[in-house]
Amino acid sequence: MTNLLAIDTSTEACSVALSVNGKTEEIFAVIPRLHSQKVLPAVEQLLTDAGINRHDIDAIAFGRGPGAFTGIRIATAITQGLAFALDRPVIPVSSLAALAQQAVRKHNATSVLAAIDARMGEVYWGQFTVDSLSGCVQLQGNEQISKPEDVLIPADESSACYGIGNGWQYAEMADKNVTTVTKDTFPHAQDIITLAHPLFLSGQIVNAEMAIPVYLRNNVADRKH
Amino acid sequence: MTNLLAIDTSTEACSVALSVNGKTEEIFAVIPRLHSQKVLPAVEQLLTDAGINRHDIDAIAFGRGPGAFTGIRIATAITQGLAFALDRPVIPVSSLAALAQQAVRKHNATSVLAAIDARMGEVYWGQFTVDSLSGCVQLQGNEQISKPEDVLIPADESSACYGIGNGWQYAEMADKNVTTVTKDTFPHAQDIITLAHPLFLSGQIVNAEMAIPVYLRNNVADRKH
Repeated sequence: MTNLLAIDTSTEACSVALSVNGKTEEIFAVIPRLHSQKVLPAVEQLLTDAGINRHDIDAIAFGRGPGAFTGIRIATAITQGLAFALDRPVIPVSSLAALAQQAVRKHNATSVLAAIDARMGEVYWGQFTVDSLSGCVQLQGNEQISKPEDVLIPADESSACYGIGNGWQYAEMADKNVTTVTKDTFPHAQDIITLAHPLFLSGQIVNAEMAIPVYLRNNVADRKH
Repeated sequence: MTNLLAIDTSTEACSVALSVNGKTEEIFAVIPRLHSQKVLPAVEQLLTDAGINRHDIDAIAFGRGPGAFTGIRIATAITQGLAFALDRPVIPVSSLAALAQQAVRKHNATSVLAAIDARMGEVYWGQFTVDSLSGCVQLQGNEQISKPEDVLIPADESSACYGIGNGWQYAEMADKNVTTVTKDTFPHAQDIITLAHPLFLSGQIVNAEMAIPVYLRNNVADRKH
């Protein structure tokens, strides 16, 4: 069996999950600006509760974005350090996919439009459908950043589409023709586990130093300081 | 003997050093925006060159700031991950002190004013003197952020004071009454090793989750995204 650790700090939420022999436990809290203090204690607690050692972790998955610039950096770098020191591979997972998987888990959605507030009047978004075999969401097209009014749902999908994520808080998102919307939620690490597991089994893993964030927005250079 | 690893990404430079039985080797490169891809390969190379294993590292020191917001976050989080996974303590070291220690190492300075460009027309700065016993720099007063014209050197120090760091590139710094200035340099991880060693021996260490950055600037909330 496989033991996977997952870390997501791509939004205001900080979430860590540990899957041991198919059983997943998660610690989740909305704690903006405290991510870097809370991730490791959460890992420690999950390991203790599961009765395993850090060296029993087989791979580390993380929310690689898109999302908050600093948060993604934190999850990436902590994951890099852990994976390097433990000599284990890394599984980058989209934070939009994690959100979409949450809609599947909680609401049995089969088609999902996940949207994360990107600030500056924009949203990160992606459209997903569920693979009936694996139960995992699959991205349709590309992940994008755009103004809310430019978010497009294919006409043949919209009637069955479930909207999820705080990108849906924008007024301009209200006229998308979707069935149901959950606005007040964030990516959860347990959904990253769900998505990472088949990736791990099929070898879609990278080395620690190849764990790279995904921003979508290009003008990150001026955020360096 | 003690084996220490040091990581600094607090400026445009990315620097990693490894001290094994008193012998320190360093990898240093000015590579803005590539820090997170280069730190772990540098650690790997230094370990290989020294012929030791990651588990032989006794403690990890890192440049905890002040400096570039994202860079400090990267060094902090990678250090956290490494230290947690290896179950080793962390030694936070000021990046201004590392700069000042460089002036001691290269120029035999005995009094140093280290200044790092903080952007937005400001500099991070601190005044240091050398402890004759340890050879390590010691901060006089507090580390500060201010406009270049507000950087103050005590009158009795200025004649012997050495200026170092890219904060000295501001025109307003030119009229400080210092002896010599090196503007085109950045903190080096080997100087963090020098400063961390006595801290390690005297138990001034923290757990991985207590490795916290120091920014000096307060308005970091709006840099989250």
